[in-house]
Amino acid sequence: MDQEHLEHWLNLRRERRTGRSVDQLLADLRNGNREALSSSITLIESTRLEDRRPAAELISKCLPFTGKSVRIGITGVPGVGKSTFIESFGKLLVERGKRVAVLAIDPSSSSSGGSILGDKTRMQELSVMEQVFIRPTAAGTTLGGVARKTRESIFLCEAAGFDVILVETVGVGQSETLVHSMVDFFLLLMLAGAGDELQGIKRGIMEMADALVITKADSGNEQKAELARREYANAMHLFPPRANKWIPQAMTVSSIEHKQIDNVWGCIESFINQNTINGSIESTRNQQNAFWLNETLKELILNDFYSKEIVLQALRKSEELVLCGELSSLEAAEQLYALYTEQQKKV
Amino acid sequence: MDQEHLEHWLNLRRERRTGRSVDQLLADLRNGNREALSSSITLIESTRLEDRRPAAELISKCLPFTGKSVRIGITGVPGVGKSTFIESFGKLLVERGKRVAVLAIDPSSSSSGGSILGDKTRMQELSVMEQVFIRPTAAGTTLGGVARKTRESIFLCEAAGFDVILVETVGVGQSETLVHSMVDFFLLLMLAGAGDELQGIKRGIMEMADALVITKADSGNEQKAELARREYANAMHLFPPRANKWIPQAMTVSSIEHKQIDNVWGCIESFINQNTINGSIESTRNQQNAFWLNETLKELILNDFYSKEIVLQALRKSEELVLCGELSSLEAAEQLYALYTEQQKKV
Repeated sequence: MDQEHLEHWLNLRRERRTGRSVDQLLADLRNGNREALSSSITLIESTRLEDRRPAAELISKCLPFTGKSVRIGITGVPGVGKSTFIESFGKLLVERGKRVAVLAIDPSSSSSGGSILGDKTRMQELSVMEQVFIRPTAAGTTLGGVARKTRESIFLCEAAGFDVILVETVGVGQSETLVHSMVDFFLLLMLAGAGDELQGIKRGIMEMADALVITKADSGNEQKAELARREYANAMHLFPPRANKWIPQAMTVSSIEHKQIDNVWGCIESFINQNTINGSIESTRNQQNAFWLNETLKELILNDFYSKEIVLQALRKSEELVLCGELSSLEAAEQLYALYTEQQKKV
Repeated sequence: MDQEHLEHWLNLRRERRTGRSVDQLLADLRNGNREALSSSITLIESTRLEDRRPAAELISKCLPFTGKSVRIGITGVPGVGKSTFIESFGKLLVERGKRVAVLAIDPSSSSSGGSILGDKTRMQELSVMEQVFIRPTAAGTTLGGVARKTRESIFLCEAAGFDVILVETVGVGQSETLVHSMVDFFLLLMLAGAGDELQGIKRGIMEMADALVITKADSGNEQKAELARREYANAMHLFPPRANKWIPQAMTVSSIEHKQIDNVWGCIESFINQNTINGSIESTRNQQNAFWLNETLKELILNDFYSKEIVLQALRKSEELVLCGELSSLEAAEQLYALYTEQQKKV
């Protein structure tokens, strides 16, 4: 079977499975059909061979309709109250007439294939709203792969007409850097703790934050929260100034009492206004695109390797030999690599 | 120029630069020549095209002489006293007749190209000893790449006759997992702190540790250290049992007063004895090899892409277009990937 026939056959197989062509999916998506948005994200997350081309095609066709939302990254250690904040913040955005999409990157669940119900049950009021779309963590084998799918999901949500995209992650390390490379505004949630206020979260993550929000400034806890806020505000003044001239803000909120949540949105709005005028939103997005160009390329190249049946069979065999100590990993890698380049020439 | 001529020419160019063939280098290395060991590590760390083949050849030729050392990973947060501990521990090992190599993986310095003098000045007494070899952090662009070079450096050190290899890293996240995947024994250094003893270091890192050492149990500070030790010992009892039946130990040491350092070595010796008999050292190393087989493969594949001049030129051009917003990163990636597969067929 030659390439063209294979493509045709794969398309048929896919359409028989999903009952919908890419153009139909796009049209439904653009009409604001939530089920179509869900199916689209499932398509781009799919690892099936027959889904790869349609997924790329769908994203390409969505691209002209992307870029008009405000993309916000939200991070913080477990227990800081991310879901409660997003529930309260999301409802405020809906009141202001926005359509809100919530996506998540959770590195700890990437190996288990992603949480399925977790996020929906966490944000009970928000999840039933007509103007809100919540999608749990993408499945995937590598953090980079998961993050890439989340970034493409942003595009799909934008094409479906969402105005604000919230990308949630856990504040434990590398995932922040990836989220930071796909959002316009990066929000760090923190708890007012006793003692050293800077512990628990890495300085690098603080330096990425455009605003820092002390959560749980609930009745009776306001003073402690305000004290923490001042300490952080002082600490952030010591960070080097930014290219876009933005000075990171420190705020307090009570998510359960819906207090000062509007301050956060006010802060983000002034950030967006200021940086749209000086052009730094656009230039940052272009820089992010250049970063993702390389990430996407790497994934395309590696996927190609891991999709070749002959190579995979040889890899399994080599792994067995390496596992019982009969072959060195370096020799095995060189052999497999040689086999792969051989195969490349045949295609 | 065909492949064979290219190889020949590259070899000539390399030998003119270094004045030494791979076989000479290997012979000098095996004779315990420290300068040859240094040059060998520099060779495998090199990104020059003409160094790739000789580096692979050198490692292959070293492999029969590897595997006889005790490989120890050492981690802990900045300020825990890793260098002081290694200085004291290294001297003890030398007293016991061991030849000791110290390697380092520092994720924070990987982007700046690695520390050049840092490690040597930190371990003043150790670094001048005849039986000790200290090599600062490998240079590299990715943490995985740096770690892979460190793993290959372990092989070179073993071929050069070193009995104990210490691999040092900073306890901040992903680098521990990589170090853990190349050592026999994983040592976590911790400070006795007031309050919550489990803060500051992630549970995942504690679960990887075969022993936990409370540092700075210096005169006057012994009680506090002992208290912390007990708390950690209790915490570790709650971790799930291990396949190799080893129960992680908690100890205290004073590096500056050279107190109880011998306990640490005693603990490692009993670990090695127990796990050599039950075969788990060997099976663990084989599992590590299978992991690194995949890592090495990925690097070979990506290196091939990034070493093609035509592809690189196109990549630079695409990056420019993406940076000024004239091309989407997805389209650019697909185009570059198509160009690459085209090139593959021509070779």
